[in-house]
Parts: sequence; structure tokens; C-alpha cells
Amino acid sequence: MQTPESIHEQYIKLAIKLAKKAEGVTSPNPIVGAVLVKDGKIIGSGYHHRAGLPHAEIEAINDARRKGNSALIPGSTIYVTLEPCSTHGKTPPCVNAIINEKIKCVVYGATDPNPLHSGRAKKILTDAGVQVIDGVLAEECTSLNPAFNHWIVHKTPYVILKSAMTLDGKIATASGESKWITGEKARRYAMNLRKISDAILVGVNTVIADNPSLTYRGIKRIESMKKLRRIILDPNCRIPLNSTVVTDRFSSFTTVVVSENADAEKVRKLQTCVNVLKLPFRDGRLDLNLLMKKLGEDNVLALLVEGGGNTNAAFFESRLVNRVVFFYAPKIICGRDAVKAVAGKGFSSWNEIPKLRNIKFKKMGDDLMIDALVSYD
Amino acid sequence: MQTPESIHEQYIKLAIKLAKKAEGVTSPNPIVGAVLVKDGKIIGSGYHHRAGLPHAEIEAINDARRKGNSALIPGSTIYVTLEPCSTHGKTPPCVNAIINEKIKCVVYGATDPNPLHSGRAKKILTDAGVQVIDGVLAEECTSLNPAFNHWIVHKTPYVILKSAMTLDGKIATASGESKWITGEKARRYAMNLRKISDAILVGVNTVIADNPSLTYRGIKRIESMKKLRRIILDPNCRIPLNSTVVTDRFSSFTTVVVSENADAEKVRKLQTCVNVLKLPFRDGRLDLNLLMKKLGEDNVLALLVEGGGNTNAAFFESRLVNRVVFFYAPKIICGRDAVKAVAGKGFSSWNEIPKLRNIKFKKMGDDLMIDALVSYD
Repeated sequence: MQTPESIHEQYIKLAIKLAKKAEGVTSPNPIVGAVLVKDGKIIGSGYHHRAGLPHAEIEAINDARRKGNSALIPGSTIYVTLEPCSTHGKTPPCVNAIINEKIKCVVYGATDPNPLHSGRAKKILTDAGVQVIDGVLAEECTSLNPAFNHWIVHKTPYVILKSAMTLDGKIATASGESKWITGEKARRYAMNLRKISDAILVGVNTVIADNPSLTYRGIKRIESMKKLRRIILDPNCRIPLNSTVVTDRFSSFTTVVVSENADAEKVRKLQTCVNVLKLPFRDGRLDLNLLMKKLGEDNVLALLVEGGGNTNAAFFESRLVNRVVFFYAPKIICGRDAVKAVAGKGFSSWNEIPKLRNIKFKKMGDDLMIDALVSYD
Repeated sequence: MQTPESIHEQYIKLAIKLAKKAEGVTSPNPIVGAVLVKDGKIIGSGYHHRAGLPHAEIEAINDARRKGNSALIPGSTIYVTLEPCSTHGKTPPCVNAIINEKIKCVVYGATDPNPLHSGRAKKILTDAGVQVIDGVLAEECTSLNPAFNHWIVHKTPYVILKSAMTLDGKIATASGESKWITGEKARRYAMNLRKISDAILVGVNTVIADNPSLTYRGIKRIESMKKLRRIILDPNCRIPLNSTVVTDRFSSFTTVVVSENADAEKVRKLQTCVNVLKLPFRDGRLDLNLLMKKLGEDNVLALLVEGGGNTNAAFFESRLVNRVVFFYAPKIICGRDAVKAVAGKGFSSWNEIPKLRNIKFKKMGDDLMIDALVSYD
């Protein structure tokens, strides 16, 4: 039986599906989907395509017009995954459009996560006589934009830490030997993390050892246009100038983070090839909190850390990791001197160690994937 | 539709179910179940209860007698999980009973794994005019007795290595702090490994750190009677004489394995409390291959290793582990000096590292369990 609630959920579900079409390409905006309904029929729908282009609500209204449904817009109901915007950004506020188009009812899922705007559209719309139903599939709608939700509140990136290791937590033998084979499914999942990220970060040892390209290799053209910034932690400015991240055609997307004490001549040379960011030390390593602040200011909403053991540990120990994605290969390396996926100084007390919640396990071929959120208390 | 094949499988499945009733208590014999059928009706059934008591076939025949079905036995079909025995052990060979009782047909699953007896019963029975159908659910029947199948061929124990660790492969912080919390389901699964094992092995550091009792805590009386031998690897004879495994009422089930160079006075004192086994060194550690030989001679079919990181690694590095059961708690300890679940010297080449097959993943509450077989090539 269809209740009003189930009908609302059905359209919000469709709006969620539409929103996801732009996953990874709207930053620094959230992904949003919208469906316009009149008398039980969809008269228009759309989603936010990318920053600078119209918001989902406007896309849905324009879609209705394109389909010859202009006359049906007044009195219709708009379903949208996120509370409509109430401020002027690159585009005028959507609440104005909703009111001007005489839309009768707005049903939305997630409340605007920006504490300055949260609930504001609801008030403006209600005051203008538009009916508002909020909180429909709120959790699902909110979880569409974990990075945006974090960044808009904290002004720092949402950190996803990805690592692939053996079942005993290692990534190479003591001699550094590693023949990593993860299956196609695991690789695809890992590549999708790059798609939803604005920047990827590794330590310089990873660059020296593997000379990775750290790019997003999407299949579709729209995806391959994804500009993924590359951040290399390199306190002593040891990065080889012939590294791929320094020399390839995306070098303008590379930032090497060095310490204030790094050799000036080396830094000068490096600056002719890529961006260099100087940071002070804190607790014996580059000040990651300051780095997060700077990346946040630079519109890095989602940061993917694919570091070696010490880089990974530095992020855990600085309590900066929000989500982990670990892949386990069905092998056991053994050895107290083998290369660990998470090394670092470690925590002095058991109570301080990161704990995981919302844990998802998934078998991917012979590999195992764990995807979870991180808590520090 | 019931085909003759599906009918055979149905009765073998019942025999498998019966066999499992004695899991963990028949050593050094395998678990075996049998069902006696006449004209589509079960006239008797049974399973091997424990070493020295009748085999499953005899139990089924006796059951038929008890139920007043003696007259129905001649001309019946017996379904049994394992090829009937053809040699005199503690009891006379079952093939004789089958022939004497004029049973018409024998259907069995697994072939006798002992290379000296394999297929012998089939020949004896066929020569005596009894119809034999073998290999019904062969894999399932064979997998009932992994430890027996290994021991009867190699004369050494089947080694199950169990460890509980964090997602980064650690068991304690660098300072040794560890507040291990695995859920009820994980604990029950781990306890069942003790049930199916004849001996449990740890390193002396585990005894010093945790003073464990290393007993099987079953619920039913028959299970609590389980005699689990306790093996402590202690090359330098450092075990405290007030340890639980030395002083409790099961001390006669404790064997401390020391090196030939261990302090003679300490060894003498220890020998007044528990069994002491002296072993030579090999590759810088106690000769585990020799230990396996001695335990095999002593009817240890299944050995459960619950060592710390170095004991675990020693078994992997000696290529002795047949099955691993790893539990992962949703935590990340970090730290290059944290205590590792698998430490040791490690392998020098990637090609030598143990690989897993037949991998089973299972979520147990918030913990993850991995149960798999180990390959070394």
C-alpha cells in the first residue's frame, strides 16, 4: 500500500539516484538530486552537474520546461536530497526560484550542514507560504556528502585512508620485496576513492620506492577530466626531480610539502617544477593540522591518504583520519622487520587508539575489503 | 525427484550429521557416522563415540538389534562416511562384521586416508560379493577429519594457528598494553578450536605475560572431560613454577619444551611438577620439526598454536601451519614497536611467504574472522 510517506521516500530515492550521477565532480559543492512532481507524475528532474552550473532544483525546473511542462510547475512538489540553498553563491538562491515558480511543496532529506544556513531555507519557504516536509530519508541523503558535510563545518578535509596489506598487517618483506596483486574488483573500488577525492597524499618514500603517477584513471571522458591534486610529504626535500609526479603533464597539480628547514637550494630547484608548501614541524614531524587547514582553505574537501606505514600512522596519531578502507591479500609476510602498513610512534595508551564503527566487510575475490569510519574516543 | 544418487546422498548426509556428534572426542580415531537402511527405511544408525568403543558400523548394527530389527539386517544397505576398516585395531575389522551380517551393499563417502589401507575394504567386500558404492559426498566426508587425514599420512600433527589482532596486525601497544575484547561469538568459535585439538601450544612469554590456563571449557560434561595437552615452548626454562599450567590439577597434561642447553638445575626442579621435553636447536630456535614428530608419535593429531608473534612466526617460517584462524578487532594500534601478531625473522623472498586458500570470512559482531588453509608454494 502506498502511504504519503512511502510516496515521499520513493521520489527522494529517485533524487538520490540522480545526485549520484555527479559523484566526484561537483567539489567544492555537494552532490544533489531533485525531482519535480505534479498530480503523481514526474514533470521534470535533474541534478547538480558541477560547481558553477545550476543547482539541482533549477535543473529540475529547466527539465520540466524543456519537456513542455512549464504550465504544470505552479502547484507542483519538488523533492530534493538537500535543503535548498538560501544564499547567493555562484548562482542565485534556489529558495527564490521555488517561490517565484509557485511550487507548492518542498520535500527534502538532509538539512543544510552549514551551521550558518541550517534550517534557513525551511523558514524562508514556510514564511512564503510554501509547504515544507524535511527529514525524508535524512540519513541516506546526508551520507551522500560526507566530505562536504565535514569540510563545511571544520574547514578541513575529510580524510580517507586507504591501504592494502597482508593478513598480518604488512606491505613488503624486510628486504622491501612486494609483489602486490589485488584483484580487479579491489582495484576498481580503490580507483573510485580517487574519483570522490580532491587530493591524494603519500609520503616521499612511496614516491622514491614506487614512482607512482597518483592520477585518476576513469573510463568516461568526464571522469578522466577529474583534476586530482597530488600532495607529497617530503620534509627534507628528497623527491627525485625525475619522478612522474614532478615531470608529467599534471605537474601543476602536485604540491610537495617540505619543512621550513629543508635545503634552500633543493627547494628552489623543486619550485621551478611543482608547487612547494613549507610547513613547520610539530611533535617531530610536519604539522599535519596546519596542512589540513591550508588544504581546506584551498577547497580540498576529501583527502585520500595512500601513505606508507609512517605517513599512515602520522594521520592516525594526529587523529585526522575519518574513514579507512583496508584491503587484505590472503598472504602472511611474517617478520618483525617487514614493512608495516601502519607504523609510526604509536599510542602510549590503549584508550587513545582509533576504533572503527559503521564497519563494512566485503570479500573481493580472494581479497577482503574493510570500509569503516574512525572514532578516537 | 528422488534418483538413486540423491537417495544415497541423503543417507550419507545423515551419517555425516551423526559423525559430528563425536567431534573432538574420538582422537586418535576419526569421527565416523553410519546408517543402516532396508527397503527405504532406516533400521539402525550410530556413530563412533570414542577410541576403544565400537566403530560406527557396529554401532548401527547394534542399534538395529536394540530396535528389534535383527531380522532385517541381512540384505540391508549400510551408509558410512568413511571406508570401513579392514584391519584389527582395538576392535575387529568392520568388513568382517558387514560380511557376517550378510549386508548386501556398502555406500561410503571418504576413502581410507591411510595409504596402506586405502581401497582395501572395497576389495575385500567386493570379493565377498558385497556391492560397494564409494565416493558419495566424498569431499564433505573427507573434510570431517582434516587432522586425522594429515596425521595418518605424515605422522605429525595438523597445525591450526589461531590469533586475535587489530586491523593493523598487532596485539598490544609498545608498552604491552592490551585490553582484548572479542565478542561472545568469536570466543565460542575459538573455544571450539580447542575442542577439536589434542594439544595447545604457546610460547613461554605468553605464560609469563598472561598466565593462561589453556584448558577446554566445555559446557557439557562429556566435553569438559576433554583432555587438552598443553605445550609450552621455553628454550631457556624461564617458566615461573607458580604458573597455572604448572600448578593446576591438569599439570600432568603440561609439557614444557626446553633446549638441551637449558640450566640443568632449573630443568630438574621443573620436572618434579610437569613433563619436560628437551630439544636441540635448529636455525637458531627449538627444532619444531622434531617436536612435530614427537607429538605425532604421542597421538597429537591436531595441534592448536596460540602463540605470541614469535611463536606464530616460527611455525609459519617452518612451514608447519595447515590452517589459520584470525580474529580482527575493529581497532588500529599503530606503532612500529607495537607487539605484532606475527613477528619472527620473516621470509627473505616474496615467493616463500605463506598464501591462503579455501578462505572463509565471517563477521562476528564487530569482529571479523578469517578461517583458511595455508599453502607454501
